[in-house]
Amino acid sequence: MIETANRAIRPRIGITMGDPAGVGPEVIVKALSSGVLQGLARFVVLGSLGSIEQAARSIATESRVRAVHGLDDTEEDGTIDVWETGAPVPPDLLLGQLDGRAGALAVGYIHQAAQLALDGTIDAICTAPVNKEAVELSGEHFTGHTELLAELTGADKVSMLLVAGKLRVAHVSTHVSLREAIDLVRPDRIVEVIELVRPAVQMLGIPEPRIAVAGLNPHAGEHGLFGTEETRMIRPAIDLCVARGWHVTGPHAPDSVFHIARQGHYDAVIAMYHDQGHVAIKMADFFGGVNVTLGLPVIRTSVDHGTGFDIAGKGIANEESMVAALRLAVDMATHRKATLTQ
Amino acid sequence: MIETANRAIRPRIGITMGDPAGVGPEVIVKALSSGVLQGLARFVVLGSLGSIEQAARSIATESRVRAVHGLDDTEEDGTIDVWETGAPVPPDLLLGQLDGRAGALAVGYIHQAAQLALDGTIDAICTAPVNKEAVELSGEHFTGHTELLAELTGADKVSMLLVAGKLRVAHVSTHVSLREAIDLVRPDRIVEVIELVRPAVQMLGIPEPRIAVAGLNPHAGEHGLFGTEETRMIRPAIDLCVARGWHVTGPHAPDSVFHIARQGHYDAVIAMYHDQGHVAIKMADFFGGVNVTLGLPVIRTSVDHGTGFDIAGKGIANEESMVAALRLAVDMATHRKATLTQ
Repeated sequence: MIETANRAIRPRIGITMGDPAGVGPEVIVKALSSGVLQGLARFVVLGSLGSIEQAARSIATESRVRAVHGLDDTEEDGTIDVWETGAPVPPDLLLGQLDGRAGALAVGYIHQAAQLALDGTIDAICTAPVNKEAVELSGEHFTGHTELLAELTGADKVSMLLVAGKLRVAHVSTHVSLREAIDLVRPDRIVEVIELVRPAVQMLGIPEPRIAVAGLNPHAGEHGLFGTEETRMIRPAIDLCVARGWHVTGPHAPDSVFHIARQGHYDAVIAMYHDQGHVAIKMADFFGGVNVTLGLPVIRTSVDHGTGFDIAGKGIANEESMVAALRLAVDMATHRKATLTQ
Repeated sequence: MIETANRAIRPRIGITMGDPAGVGPEVIVKALSSGVLQGLARFVVLGSLGSIEQAARSIATESRVRAVHGLDDTEEDGTIDVWETGAPVPPDLLLGQLDGRAGALAVGYIHQAAQLALDGTIDAICTAPVNKEAVELSGEHFTGHTELLAELTGADKVSMLLVAGKLRVAHVSTHVSLREAIDLVRPDRIVEVIELVRPAVQMLGIPEPRIAVAGLNPHAGEHGLFGTEETRMIRPAIDLCVARGWHVTGPHAPDSVFHIARQGHYDAVIAMYHDQGHVAIKMADFFGGVNVTLGLPVIRTSVDHGTGFDIAGKGIANEESMVAALRLAVDMATHRKATLTQ
């Protein structure tokens, strides 16, 4: 009975395969056959059976690739289950080459994942990389996974949490110029990001997350000597959150707060712009970083690297980020399932 | 004879004691009595005999503190030599307290060091922290070590190099608001910083330093999508350096270049603003970072922490940065002496 109970609470994770011509299939096969995730969840690859088989052959894994057509199939240990619903990958598709057909397939896997997550068939989505140019070549417009998943699940405010070990970072802005990023440092947006971060960190089993807000300027402005955004924009946002009873502190000196968080003294850091957070995350763990999309009605984690066309098919892609992304999806989904069944 | 030759080439390092009320005396005593620097150089503390004796007692070191009055004294292994030229520390000075008298003494040690370096008595200066407020309380104006040493040695263009292991970072700007920092990203300033960095890295025994220039914007602007400073300001500076035959590359994606440099693929990185470089350095080594002042006619390294009044006298100050700063001063001075005597 205990085993049944564990199986019931064990989450089902859908892994979108990403661009078939990239490193996605390889890092998925490496992660699933490494054994480190064994027994933690029921994993299913949403992608191409042919691509996964090819990747499995190329790295000579002992795991068996198996076609499934849903998650009610009899489960077997040590298999890599692929649920292919789209067209097969064209036989003339070349690894490492931009191809609109690959881009279209990759988008299809995301559609499938969103649907399965919304109808409760899977408990979390973990995504392998998509190539934006390949999708555009297929004729579809594509800003990114986050935006597409927001659209497919009807989410209006989304953001990204980067995770590397104990360091978790969310950004006030990401893909804008630094000059524009400064203009986006405003109290309402900072509060919005904190509102998105709290439930995600809570889903990791931390009921009252300690959230550190970074300053924008050197030394957090050194009492107004180097900029006033700390007093005009950041402090009011912190005050508002503190008034709600949340554990939010700052503005902290940007050059120290990420290190201090990595030591375990904060559960998340709010970065004021892209590189403030990204430099810290990549220094903390260049290969093992994970993204979590905040604000979706479904759990979604992602590797933090691209399709790696230059190394696709060479067997040298590093799967650490995929392992970490899967592990985080499992953690979040397990905790949410446990909460829901309490 | 070999020993004599080694002694001749072995550099003499003057260590300014910094604020007597701060952690300077403690980290100096810890570093010099740790044994890891033994035999590498002739070290002399420029500071207060009383403060160093007090620090030695408080951490119960076995090293003997000795008063010297120049560097021609008979050298003894295992002693901590203090050359005190200023007034003694007042007996009522309290550790961990802001005091103008301590600030004035700290500035005096810097004057002494600059004079000894200029007249060739010492080969390098390594500085313990000074408290700006304490100096201001003494009635003197004080912007920082770097500015004072520039004034005392007649240097006009100075800059700072941060070092943490293999990662070396120089900045286009430091203590200005982020908004102002963006305006300071200009080709002439970038070239100036590269011109300052090259000889310093060469003094570490790297004849043709590989210098990576970071972008300003996320992904170095992603081909102009997120800002144009890369094409308008940074690229022209790089082109000019490349035309001189220097190994200068970029603009690189800021979130990756520091990690890549730390792996040993670049000898120095040019950061576009304070926190771009400082976040990276502090993530690479929070306690062991070192500053080198570029552009002075004398070698000067420094710890990268402050006076730590909150922990002064408690015996818990971390000496890693002082050890690293001394080691770097030794490396640079040894290499320069070797070059000069060739």
